[in-house]
Order: sequence, then C-alpha cells, then structure tokens
Amino acid sequence: MEINIPNYIKDPRLMNRIVSAQEAASWIKDGMTLGLSGFTRAGDAKAVPTALIERAKNEAMKLNIYTGASLGSDIDKLMAEAGMIHKRMPFQADSTMRKKINQGEMLFVDQHLSHMAEAIRSDVLNPIDFAIVEAVSIDQSGFIIPSTSVGNSSIFVEKAKHVIVEINMAQPQALEGLHDIYELGKQGEREPILLKNVDDRIGSVGIPVHSDKIAGIVFTHQVDSASTIVPPDEETQIMANHLIRFLKSEVEAGRLTNQLAPLQSGIGSVANAVLHGLLESDFTNLEVYSEVLQDAVFDLIDAGKVRFASCCSITLSYEKMKQVYSNLDKYKNYLILRPQEISNHPEIIRRLGLISINTALEIDIYGNVNSTHVRGTHMMNGIGGSGDFARNARLAIFVTKSIAKNGDISSIVPFVSHVDHTEHDVDVIVTEQGYADLRGLAPIERVPLIIENCVHPSYRDQLIEYFEEAKQKGGQTPHILEKALSWHINYEKNGTMHQLIHEV
Amino acid sequence: MEINIPNYIKDPRLMNRIVSAQEAASWIKDGMTLGLSGFTRAGDAKAVPTALIERAKNEAMKLNIYTGASLGSDIDKLMAEAGMIHKRMPFQADSTMRKKINQGEMLFVDQHLSHMAEAIRSDVLNPIDFAIVEAVSIDQSGFIIPSTSVGNSSIFVEKAKHVIVEINMAQPQALEGLHDIYELGKQGEREPILLKNVDDRIGSVGIPVHSDKIAGIVFTHQVDSASTIVPPDEETQIMANHLIRFLKSEVEAGRLTNQLAPLQSGIGSVANAVLHGLLESDFTNLEVYSEVLQDAVFDLIDAGKVRFASCCSITLSYEKMKQVYSNLDKYKNYLILRPQEISNHPEIIRRLGLISINTALEIDIYGNVNSTHVRGTHMMNGIGGSGDFARNARLAIFVTKSIAKNGDISSIVPFVSHVDHTEHDVDVIVTEQGYADLRGLAPIERVPLIIENCVHPSYRDQLIEYFEEAKQKGGQTPHILEKALSWHINYEKNGTMHQLIHEV
Repeated sequence: MEINIPNYIKDPRLMNRIVSAQEAASWIKDGMTLGLSGFTRAGDAKAVPTALIERAKNEAMKLNIYTGASLGSDIDKLMAEAGMIHKRMPFQADSTMRKKINQGEMLFVDQHLSHMAEAIRSDVLNPIDFAIVEAVSIDQSGFIIPSTSVGNSSIFVEKAKHVIVEINMAQPQALEGLHDIYELGKQGEREPILLKNVDDRIGSVGIPVHSDKIAGIVFTHQVDSASTIVPPDEETQIMANHLIRFLKSEVEAGRLTNQLAPLQSGIGSVANAVLHGLLESDFTNLEVYSEVLQDAVFDLIDAGKVRFASCCSITLSYEKMKQVYSNLDKYKNYLILRPQEISNHPEIIRRLGLISINTALEIDIYGNVNSTHVRGTHMMNGIGGSGDFARNARLAIFVTKSIAKNGDISSIVPFVSHVDHTEHDVDVIVTEQGYADLRGLAPIERVPLIIENCVHPSYRDQLIEYFEEAKQKGGQTPHILEKALSWHINYEKNGTMHQLIHEV
Repeated sequence: MEINIPNYIKDPRLMNRIVSAQEAASWIKDGMTLGLSGFTRAGDAKAVPTALIERAKNEAMKLNIYTGASLGSDIDKLMAEAGMIHKRMPFQADSTMRKKINQGEMLFVDQHLSHMAEAIRSDVLNPIDFAIVEAVSIDQSGFIIPSTSVGNSSIFVEKAKHVIVEINMAQPQALEGLHDIYELGKQGEREPILLKNVDDRIGSVGIPVHSDKIAGIVFTHQVDSASTIVPPDEETQIMANHLIRFLKSEVEAGRLTNQLAPLQSGIGSVANAVLHGLLESDFTNLEVYSEVLQDAVFDLIDAGKVRFASCCSITLSYEKMKQVYSNLDKYKNYLILRPQEISNHPEIIRRLGLISINTALEIDIYGNVNSTHVRGTHMMNGIGGSGDFARNARLAIFVTKSIAKNGDISSIVPFVSHVDHTEHDVDVIVTEQGYADLRGLAPIERVPLIIENCVHPSYRDQLIEYFEEAKQKGGQTPHILEKALSWHINYEKNGTMHQLIHEV
C-alpha cells in the first residue's frame, strides 16, 4: 500500500523518522520501562509491541509496561505469554495475564487510573525510556494527534526519554479535533483546572512534543479490538429499571432535575446495560463525563438523550465502530477525548457532581465494596477509575448481579474479602433485586436495607442469621470474626456459599 | 458581669435577639436536627447544648446532632449520658459516647469530614432545624465571626431554618480577621476554587446570614476545652526521626525541596509528636494546610520553621492557648481558619500536593489501613479527615506504634479487621521500627518491606510464617482466609496476638 506521507506527517522536520516496527522494537533493551498508549482496548500502540513480542520469543527480556488501562490486539495476552513483563501498571483485563499475575510470574500494581500521571510527573516510578503512542497524524506544529483514546499518552510523551509514534491509518483521520490535551503541571505550582462544563475545552488538539524526542514513526493499519461486552439481558434490564427508579426518586425529592447530573459509567457489560436502560427513561438532555464511552452512550446520543459526552477512550463493538467512525462529523459535536488524569480528576468529579455507576465484584452487608479480588486473593482486572469516581462523586452507585456461578456465589457477603471502596464512599447499591440507598445511614441501619432490597432470596436468611448473631456482640459494625470470611471458605471447600445442612 | 453589647453585636438590627441559653434551648423539640459548631474541642457551642442537656434529664428527647468534628466541654459525653441522641455525625472522640455507640444505644455515621457540607447542601440529610454556632462577635454587616474553629458552621447557618449564635466572651475578639469563609455553591453550578497557595484568601471574614434567620443570641464566657494530647515520648521521637529520614531521601531524590510541600497532620498525640520532630530537622520555610492545628505547629512557627498555616480549627493545651491567644496579633500573620469543606477539599489537596500524616489503628501486610474500628467491630473515634487527605495527597503517610497493650497487640496484622484506607491510597508507613515506602510496589513486594521495617521484632516471625504459607496459595494478594483474622480472634480469646505454643 502506498502511503501519502504528508497526509499523516504534516511537520516536515519529522519526515526522516519513519522506520519499521521491527527497527523501532530493536531499540528497546532488557530492563527498560515503556509507556504505551491504550485505554480499554482503544488507541493502543499495536505494531511495535507486537514486534517486541516476536523478539521476546527468542530473547530474555523483562520490561516494565505502563499504559492507560487495558490493551487490545491481544498485546497483554501475548506479552504475558512471552514472559517479558517485570511489572505492569495500572490496569489489565486479559485472562492470560490475570493467570500469570496470580501465579506470581509477573508483578502488577493495581492503581487508581487518575494517579498514574501524577506518579510519573513527580518521578515516583521508574523513568520511562520509550513512550509508544498511537496517533492518527502529526500536525504542522508537531503535535501528536492521538487516535481513539488519550489515556496516559500525553504524560508518557512528556516524561519519556524517547518517543515512538505509531500512525494508524486504519483509524479515522477525522478524529483530529476531538481531543483536548491539558497538562496540569507540577503539584504546588499548578493552576485550578478551569473546566466547569462537560463540553469545556481547556487544552490543545494534540500532544505537544519536542521534535528531537521523536525517535521513530511507524505506519500501521489495524483497527482497534472490539469491545467484549455482551448485550443487555433480562437481569441487567431489571437493574437498569431499579436505577432509573432511584434516580426518579431523586428528581422527586428535588435533589436532581430531569437532566440528572453528568454520568460516569464503568467499563463492562453490566454498566453498559444499565446506561442503555436510560433509553427508556424520561430523563433528557443528559451529559456524560466518564473515562470510557461504550456502545450505550452512542445509542443515547442517537436517541437525542445525551447532549454531550466527555471521555478518555471510546471502546465499541465492531458494528458500533463502523457506524460511529463513518459518521464522525456528526458525533464530533457531542464528544471530547481527554487525558485520563482529567477525565478522572477529583477536582472535576467533585465540582461537576457526577453520578458515578461502577460494577462491584462483591459487597458486604455494611456497604464495603470489593472490585478487584476474587475471594480476597486473586486479581480480576483492577480498580480502574472506580475509586477516582466513587470517592468524589455526588452519587457513588455500585451495581452487581446478586448471585454468580448459578447461585453458588452470593455477591453480598457478611464481610468482603478485599476492600476497594470503603463504607464511607458507597452511596447506593443496585442489584436485580432492587436498590439500597445508604446515604446518611449508620452501619446497622444499612444491613436490613441491603438484605431486603439487594440480596438474592436464597441468601437472605443466611445473612439475617449472621447479622443477628453478630449484633449480640455489639459494636458500631457488628461481626463474628470467626465467621466473617466463612462464606468464602465454604465456597473454596464445597463450591457454594450456601450453608450446608449439617448432619445430626 | 456587665456586657458591653455593642462590642459584640455590631449590627443594630440584632440587639433585640439576646436571650438566655435556657430560653434558646426551650425552642428545640424532640425529633429535631441540630447543627453545632465545634471541631476537635475548639469553637464548640457550649451554653445552649448544656441547657438542652439539663432539659433532657427530665424530658424524653431524641435529636440528630451534626457537628464539625468532636466537641469539647464534655458536651458529647453529657449528651450521650442523657440518652438524647438519635443520630450523631460525622465524628466524635468521647469515651462515654463511644460506649453508647458500641452498645447500639445511639446511631453514629462515620463520615469523611469534607463530605458533610456537601451532603447538607444537597439536602441528602435531614434538614437542620437549628444551627447553634459559637462566635466572637457579629459585625456591622451582620456577619457571624466564628471563634477558634469554623468546621461546618457556615453550611449549618446557610441551610438551617433558624440560627442561634453563642457569643463567647472568653474567646479573644482578636480572632476577627483570621477566618476566610467561602461557600462553594451547588455542584454543577460552582466555580473552580481559586486557592493556589496556603495563604490565599478567597472568601469573607465571617459567615453571611440573613438577620431574620437569627432566632437568638446567647452570651457565654467559657474557654475551649484543652487538647488531650500527651507530650512526645521516646518512641514518637524515634518515629519523627524515621519520617524526617524519609522526607530527606525525597529531597535527595529531587522529588521535594527543603521546603517540602504543605503539611497536613491528623489529630492526636502521635501526629502532634511527629510534627514536633520537625523542629530538629533542616527543613525550612514550611507550610501547613491541615484541618486542626495542635501545639506543635505553633512551636514550629515560633522556631521560624513554619511560614504559614491554614486550618479549620485550633486545638491547644491550656499553656499553648494562653501563649497564642495573648499574642494573636503576631500569629495572625501566620494563620487562616477555613470551613472544613475547604481545608479538606480534594481539589485543593491534589492541587497543592500535600504531605499528609495520619494515625492508623492497624495496618495489614499489604498496606490497608484501619483507622476506626477496634477488632473490626467497635468504633474508636471515626475516620475524620484522614480519608480526605490520604486519598488525594502527594504523599499519604500513616504512622502508628508497632505494638499496643504492652505488646499483646501488633499494629501490623495479616489482614485488617476493617478498611478505611485501601492499599491504593497508602504510600508510606512509619512506626518506631522504621518506615516502608510502598509507592509503585505490587502487594507481594510490599510485605517484606513492611515486615522488615515496620513490624515489632516480636511479631516478625509470625507474619513471615503467615505470608510464606499464604504464598503457596498464590494470587495477587496472598491470604489464608481461615487464618486471616486469627490474630484478632486470638486476642479476643487469649488476650494476646502472640501465637501460643501448642501443647504436644
């Protein structure tokens, strides 16, 4: 394929930097730290990491890999299989990598997504040797125009010793103009972030970089991996209805208007389905201020429900990709893509008063949430941005189906086996059973509400029994320490959290 | 005592509102919600609550009591004894009240201190019937000039149906001019907080209030309760030295200058002692951006170490009170008192890049921190502002002595019995044994560091044994669920966390 280079590299100083992915990959040495673009499968650097994986098959190599969030194109899977990762931050969502992490074959630091840039800026982490970022072009002034995500790319480019740009010709050029790149500057020296509305632009259209820093430019042609979400099902539809019922009651109480407040929704099928449910609601003129936009947000835009959506990544199914990327001129009026430090920044989240909807792995009877660890020990994906949002949102809502594994796991347990969101930060719990509004309630007031409204009927009696026994021992947050984790232990031993009937 | 009223009430419209504490207390009815001034014993409303407690001795009455934080003047103790509280928020630190809470005789909502104002502003909590706030005066424009704390007084006054002002003549009039009252406005409609330096003033000198809302003005003459901190001891001095050693290493690494970054220090003897230790350091021109100023900060000001201190409360020993309040003209150049929503606001904490130092009750081998619950169930004081700071600080440091109860309790355990600060939010742990810098480390990297540097020698082997056994089971965060809480259970049963030698 012939490439019309000046269409993609508009800064003439950079024409001489074009290299193959293999050559760029050859610059990377054992022990280095890389900052890769990519956030939940969108806008990830594809060619150089792939070439590097090829090298690693025949060459001992351990690298630190920093990203925005999870990667697409099986990069995380292949890197994990190649055994080439020493440390991975701040998020992943690949089953092979998960296995390697849990087997102790690679290190994983599970970090709030808004904290990664701060840690890099303040030189707390290893210095970044190479930033490898996907772009749709480099403009006349040498600004790198990112593709379908911004993630941590701008801070990677700023702080890395060298930069490799992957210009992906399969990404729509029309993405240019969608981004708003803002650099906070050092703590203690920075200005307030003057972002007061979801559609405010405060930065530049691309990532500024000194041209000397660009070590190589690689041309690629490969679409993003499609999102792995499954369509809404009956249960997620019921959950969406409960959420809508709760939001309506907030409008009736005068705490929200029919426009609600800017919405944030976590990654995944349940969050997508719940958002999808808003299509059927009376809410209107909605705003989204989130990290990832999934299919549902575009359906809401199409339906005239969403007025504007700010994000740091767009992660879609193939069908949705086709529709959105062939109509970018239309969608451009509805979208901004920001660095994840801005999409997830506590200053903005608190100022705008977001309604934050994230998925829980398990929740306890007092409202503590585990988002990351299966039975307290084994990593699922990571906390992602859920802590950034829940901690500072107007409403921190957690959604989960009340049971898993055909009913052998209750998502509501006496005592969570790992805490990612403390009781202080969880406002509302939604399952297919109903919702529990925990705001302003003492721990012992929360328990009956959660059991009655959120727990699956097959586990209610068991939880009531636990709570009644615990209350005998008193305390602000009654527990029986000997039994607190017994549900998890029971599952490990007997494959179910259901109390087994004891033999007489 | 004759009162020169125009010295204290400078707005002539309000002269006719003077009443006795008893009369003001008589307006309060069973079931009402009160917003009381007061933050960690400073600036609390004293006379009307006391009169109310007298009434409650002979009259069935249940009230919701909201405050800034803990109260002085034994108000919390006496209210708890009188059985007059239905629900208390967001913090307390009284042993009698603690007992009542843990016996289930009153409800306590343990809330981040920066969240209380937001919850009241957005009408999530019960409406406030009476705000009762201590002041040193009411100025010509009718602004209420608070005394030694601001706490939540400004939002209480704004949102309450009626306001009672206690003018405390025992508080120095010269406090006028120290306060900076700023109202954020509703989420979604508010401006960025234009505070970029610890000494920036962005608000008014007093609390604005419509004069019609002031139901009564009560004159009182009663000094604040003195702080209950104990002087630094040998162990806290050693902890301070470890902290200084860590901060020095940050300076050497180029991540901090010799001026460090604005300091926040939690309430209590350990935090005070650690801050006190900075007297002996080489750091200079320090700034403080904290919620409470304790004695140590004034020693640091006197020594020329601290350039400026911003807070929402000043809580001192009697000796320090005398010294500070008779030299307010001097100290005024060094101080600002703000609402706790501003002193603890994530926007400011993140922007300024605070170094946050708070006390932990217990910490686990992965860095999760329990600040509130004794053995997971019984409330100590509350989370206070520690979550506001730790979650958004540049450096979230937690300090604790490695053992308690003569060594029968290890402050470092396999698995904390309650989580207030998750592993994602804890940067550095300091005990008298040393410090562990957890930044950028995966869970299994943190464990040896914590055990070696922070754990008391008498518990090291036991923790190593737990971790080695847990590692056999794999996972990102290895645990043996059957034994995770065994240390706490052992203490409950045998009065010690030391492994008992099993009989053969």
